[in-house]
Amino acid sequence: MSTHEPPKGYLALVLVIGLMSGTSADGVDAALVEWPEGERARPFRLVAFREEPFPPELQERIHRLAAGRVPGAEALRELASLDVLLGERFAEAAAAVARSAGIGLERVDAVASHGQTVGHYPELRATLQIGDPSVIAERTGLTTVADFRPRDVAAGGEGAPLAPFFHYAVLGDPGESRAVLNLGGIANLTWIPRAAAPDDVIAFDVGPANALIDGVVRAQTHGREHMDREGRRALRGKVDAGLLARLLDDEYLRRAPPKSTGRERYGLAEAEALAEEWSRLGKAPDDLVATLVTFTAEAVAAACRDFLGQDASIDRLLVGGGGARNPALLEALRGALAGTRIEAFDQAGVPSQAAEAMAFSLLGRNALLGIPNHLPRCTGARRSLVLGEMVPGARGTRR
Amino acid sequence: MSTHEPPKGYLALVLVIGLMSGTSADGVDAALVEWPEGERARPFRLVAFREEPFPPELQERIHRLAAGRVPGAEALRELASLDVLLGERFAEAAAAVARSAGIGLERVDAVASHGQTVGHYPELRATLQIGDPSVIAERTGLTTVADFRPRDVAAGGEGAPLAPFFHYAVLGDPGESRAVLNLGGIANLTWIPRAAAPDDVIAFDVGPANALIDGVVRAQTHGREHMDREGRRALRGKVDAGLLARLLDDEYLRRAPPKSTGRERYGLAEAEALAEEWSRLGKAPDDLVATLVTFTAEAVAAACRDFLGQDASIDRLLVGGGGARNPALLEALRGALAGTRIEAFDQAGVPSQAAEAMAFSLLGRNALLGIPNHLPRCTGARRSLVLGEMVPGARGTRR
Repeated sequence: MSTHEPPKGYLALVLVIGLMSGTSADGVDAALVEWPEGERARPFRLVAFREEPFPPELQERIHRLAAGRVPGAEALRELASLDVLLGERFAEAAAAVARSAGIGLERVDAVASHGQTVGHYPELRATLQIGDPSVIAERTGLTTVADFRPRDVAAGGEGAPLAPFFHYAVLGDPGESRAVLNLGGIANLTWIPRAAAPDDVIAFDVGPANALIDGVVRAQTHGREHMDREGRRALRGKVDAGLLARLLDDEYLRRAPPKSTGRERYGLAEAEALAEEWSRLGKAPDDLVATLVTFTAEAVAAACRDFLGQDASIDRLLVGGGGARNPALLEALRGALAGTRIEAFDQAGVPSQAAEAMAFSLLGRNALLGIPNHLPRCTGARRSLVLGEMVPGARGTRR
Repeated sequence: MSTHEPPKGYLALVLVIGLMSGTSADGVDAALVEWPEGERARPFRLVAFREEPFPPELQERIHRLAAGRVPGAEALRELASLDVLLGERFAEAAAAVARSAGIGLERVDAVASHGQTVGHYPELRATLQIGDPSVIAERTGLTTVADFRPRDVAAGGEGAPLAPFFHYAVLGDPGESRAVLNLGGIANLTWIPRAAAPDDVIAFDVGPANALIDGVVRAQTHGREHMDREGRRALRGKVDAGLLARLLDDEYLRRAPPKSTGRERYGLAEAEALAEEWSRLGKAPDDLVATLVTFTAEAVAAACRDFLGQDASIDRLLVGGGGARNPALLEALRGALAGTRIEAFDQAGVPSQAAEAMAFSLLGRNALLGIPNHLPRCTGARRSLVLGEMVPGARGTRR
């Protein structure tokens, strides 16, 4: 699945299964990745990847718990129950990804699990991920690394973002300055100057991406469609210069990093307000979609111009996330960032949908080897640390 | 503090701080123990011990959370908050016990923390201890081992009792059959035949101990006294044969191990009922206390006779817990177990109040060295495991 085949005769390899379950709680991604046994992350190879959906009842229970809708008398019991149930699910996903690659679990070195976030309380310096690593270790027989974020938080960091470490280790280049752009609900950018040291990396949330575009399509179609498939609406529409200027005149976009945002700022509420205004003015629905796509691209271009340091020049922009499969968005990015090579993660051996699970596979490998696995400049932690809590596998030791 | 001084020239030592915070949530016990670096637990040395009380507000918050009295909308936030706050407290207790021994934390190998139990759900195969080990590791700079119970539960065990492993490793003897009796609220017994293998050990809750005795004194004094200090009431009183026979005619006492019980069965409710009946009958209050002390001792003797296997003969009974400081209870035990040598834990290098924290120090040492640290026959786990989740210290690796 990757162009990064290890050179022949390369023997000291570490096989780690990375597991990621996002806040949408719709399932768990599992990536089995082969890494070298050392400080460097390359050459690596994605051996197998699977997405295992959660049953709707489980998804509903997670959302109820995270939303504080479980009564107080039952909340801890439900938390403990889901901790174990998710541990079982995660263990099954790990077993399934190894099976799909025809690799016995006994040949795998470790499982690295992000866990399911059910609470994040920056004001308390606390974050809560569940999916019991003891259950994963017991079921798979593999050393399991989990709870990466709490250590970063304990060291004064935000516990996030963690993906930039993976971008840095896997997509950075000694001869080329690169920006890694993940177009999910929110657009995240990781800036990796040529031959960067860990502290040269800058990462932040640029602003909205699919959260607004999808939200507007949902509102315009009264929920019949959830996204602008293949960017067809945007490609048909015309950009409205007035709205574009208004959207770009935004306090969050102007603010210098470190910064992060989410769907509470750029989400369904704003999308619905925009769609309603557009409809009231009698304008063509597709023009709104086209304008939001261009807004996303222009916001990225502005961030690249303003926040990557003086004289920063992007040789290559690597794009991933759902937005990377939207031709209209890619075209808009090419327009906004003329002269920059723009390509998908995939071409660097990281299929876009597998990126997050692969990131935790790398974080787990590093924990196993005692190598730091975060970027303190990006998270705000006081110093470089080995994040993660380790549960020994059946062999009783870490390896 | 111990008679078990390591022999001169013995160098490969492991220093581990054990932390224990019981369900009463009144504070954390910290024991700094020196162990050999290997399979064997002896010779060991308790270097320092401290009891650090929690402020009443913290204790109250823990009890509210564990009792399900925090509203659902706040419960997870409160859990995450206490997880971090207790992590800070535990880290301070670890630092304090090292300081009191004049030993810099950088000379200590690890911290092992039981955590504060806020939920235990055998029917869900789940157990919930808090006190974030990432916080302990970050503050102390030491590799921290925590969450011992969940792995045993994941392997089909009860996650308890864990102390018998410590009794076995530290108090067992190649030439002598020993029973270890802990007289807390409940009386727990660990039977370690001469030259026992791990699977020869039997451990179970015998029945009530201080829970009933203290509860009756509390009821009789309307809360002015919380215990029968020095056993004075019991020594003054006379045993009532009728009540003694009635108490000994008990379904729980007759049931064969494995078994466990708690204050929900032998607690304040039963103590109050007994005190009320006694007062109604106009009998001397001290006679009730004396009868309960004898009942405790006779229940232990019956358990030793019935449940330790055929031809079991106890060469030495080692007694610990609060009850070991009650001369009336020790006298009653000597009467009930005529011919058995009875002495306090302390004489084996384990001060009674330090035993639990020392137990977790040993469990942590074993986790660090990859050596199993529970007795599957006692917990019901399917196989022998290394319990515990490890967070690397400042040095980034386990040691």
